[in-house]
Amino acid sequence: MIQPTNKSLTPLLQAKIDNLNKPKGSLGRLESLALQIGLIQQTTCPTLRHPCHLLFAGDHGIEREGVSASPREVTWQQVENYGKGGGGINMFCRQHQFDLRVIDVGVDHDFALYWNPHIVDRKIAYGTNNFLYEPAMSENAYRKAMLVGAEQVKGCYNKGCNVVSIGEMGIGNTSPSSILMHLFLHIDLEKCVGAGSGLGEERVKHKYTILKKAVDNFHRTTGKEDVETVIRYFAGFEMVAAIGAMLKAAELGMVILVDGFIMTACMLAATQLAPNIMDYAIFCHQSDEGGHKLMLEKMQASPLLNLGMRLGEGTGAVCAYPLLQSAVNMLNEMDNFAHANITKYF
Amino acid sequence: MIQPTNKSLTPLLQAKIDNLNKPKGSLGRLESLALQIGLIQQTTCPTLRHPCHLLFAGDHGIEREGVSASPREVTWQQVENYGKGGGGINMFCRQHQFDLRVIDVGVDHDFALYWNPHIVDRKIAYGTNNFLYEPAMSENAYRKAMLVGAEQVKGCYNKGCNVVSIGEMGIGNTSPSSILMHLFLHIDLEKCVGAGSGLGEERVKHKYTILKKAVDNFHRTTGKEDVETVIRYFAGFEMVAAIGAMLKAAELGMVILVDGFIMTACMLAATQLAPNIMDYAIFCHQSDEGGHKLMLEKMQASPLLNLGMRLGEGTGAVCAYPLLQSAVNMLNEMDNFAHANITKYF
Repeated sequence: MIQPTNKSLTPLLQAKIDNLNKPKGSLGRLESLALQIGLIQQTTCPTLRHPCHLLFAGDHGIEREGVSASPREVTWQQVENYGKGGGGINMFCRQHQFDLRVIDVGVDHDFALYWNPHIVDRKIAYGTNNFLYEPAMSENAYRKAMLVGAEQVKGCYNKGCNVVSIGEMGIGNTSPSSILMHLFLHIDLEKCVGAGSGLGEERVKHKYTILKKAVDNFHRTTGKEDVETVIRYFAGFEMVAAIGAMLKAAELGMVILVDGFIMTACMLAATQLAPNIMDYAIFCHQSDEGGHKLMLEKMQASPLLNLGMRLGEGTGAVCAYPLLQSAVNMLNEMDNFAHANITKYF
Repeated sequence: MIQPTNKSLTPLLQAKIDNLNKPKGSLGRLESLALQIGLIQQTTCPTLRHPCHLLFAGDHGIEREGVSASPREVTWQQVENYGKGGGGINMFCRQHQFDLRVIDVGVDHDFALYWNPHIVDRKIAYGTNNFLYEPAMSENAYRKAMLVGAEQVKGCYNKGCNVVSIGEMGIGNTSPSSILMHLFLHIDLEKCVGAGSGLGEERVKHKYTILKKAVDNFHRTTGKEDVETVIRYFAGFEMVAAIGAMLKAAELGMVILVDGFIMTACMLAATQLAPNIMDYAIFCHQSDEGGHKLMLEKMQASPLLNLGMRLGEGTGAVCAYPLLQSAVNMLNEMDNFAHANITKYF
């Protein structure tokens, strides 16, 4: 059960922020960030401890339809690469001292785990079914993937972590993300479909045609269209695990860093199951993927960064972390007008 | 003499960036940042060493005309506060390990320096003249302030620093900044004038009226209107010192972090003296001050952050520093396609 944060602390937090020795409101977004983190932790002196990054990976049946610029094998190749420390996410995690866990929930490959202990094996299947013809996964597989996400977050929490960031690797996963955006926000599918890792204009059209057909099939063949049915019909294992992780993190009162297009789609799905989760979500980066700006707007989410990144892996989330630290430092380290003996100004 | 960066290294740098194991261009602004830093340092393996933040402070004669929401004494009070470590800039410098130097170039106060060795005394006068009636400073004072800036940068450089950030404290200094923007970019003065630290609508109008009168007087009474005459007629000591610091930093091949409205106006002034300086400038934050967005656009500068901050002190610049580190880490730590054995994708 996810509780909303208790807003009765708001006046006290806001008063503390307003009395720091700076013109009122002059630290902009850092001030609203400090307020949110203070409310999550229910204190005027919040702290960020042992940040963890969970990177879930899985393959997608829909990739067989030519909806991605990148070939399927890139999923497992990149997962091995993260295991070796050479990916984009590795360097950002090192820079900001995140504990990185890479979890195989559904990659189409057998990893030689004996030589790479950094890849956690929670494989449910070798990729999802092709949702052009059938649901991506069974109800049972859906439950299992949700549990994997929750279990991973619980593991971090038990080690003292109170801020978790979530990322993904799965060639083809902008496709299901676009469909979740379309179905949950009632936005024209065309506005939800973008270039992914680098499709040209013609191939984006092809991607749209395939996804349109899949959605039509879904409406025609599926008796019920409740939230969980939608998710398991389209999402990848790595996405369902991410949703499970987000839900568990909010339940435990942790700060959740939300990355770009795919992770925002997962957070959107999570809000359909538990609207209060938004109190715990910090949107970190507006991705270059077409549709992300619109999705954020509809969710009334204001991202911290807008750097034109579209790598995935959770890179945008981890990159934004120093801003959270700044917000927290502001509350804990900045002097106030009274103590600093400064004429209060505006 | 400021040389442009040698662009013959561009193809090599770009090839290195394009062969890192990520879809081409997918790290967005971090990639252009890596390219710029690589060109400044003329290497494909740049490093950022011993970052320094120089905070110049001075008072303004024009403040007597009621153009600022904050009273004059806030300048010295805040400078003392920085000396004690309690300001916004202090916590950001601690967070990102910047060496902070606070330099009094023209504050209207005698500091008890014996108990606060953290304030560097380079006072030229107790504030500038009121430019509504006369030039802010003499030619001699202008030269001295430029030298203070250059000397401070040289000091950092000699200690091994290759990246310098510059900030300011001076109640009233959005006024001269607006005028520099108006005169150097030929933009209507009205579009250059904003709320500063928190003026209401009526007082912004008053500020505009005063500045309009000052500019009219300047045109009427000054025989020559060359760049240096404009600067010394309007700018504060802390601004001239900042310009001097920027020019010296570029001459020494250092990376220059440019903060918000006032520091962008100083960089604009510096470009009028030495256009090549833009090669060394990284614009860090788009401030909430009206006019800053337009000034950046006209300078073809794309800021890294847009967090609605308007505190000054250089806070926006220091906050953006982790992104520079990320860009450099990308070049030095991320694996490439060939070595990681990954199918090159788009």
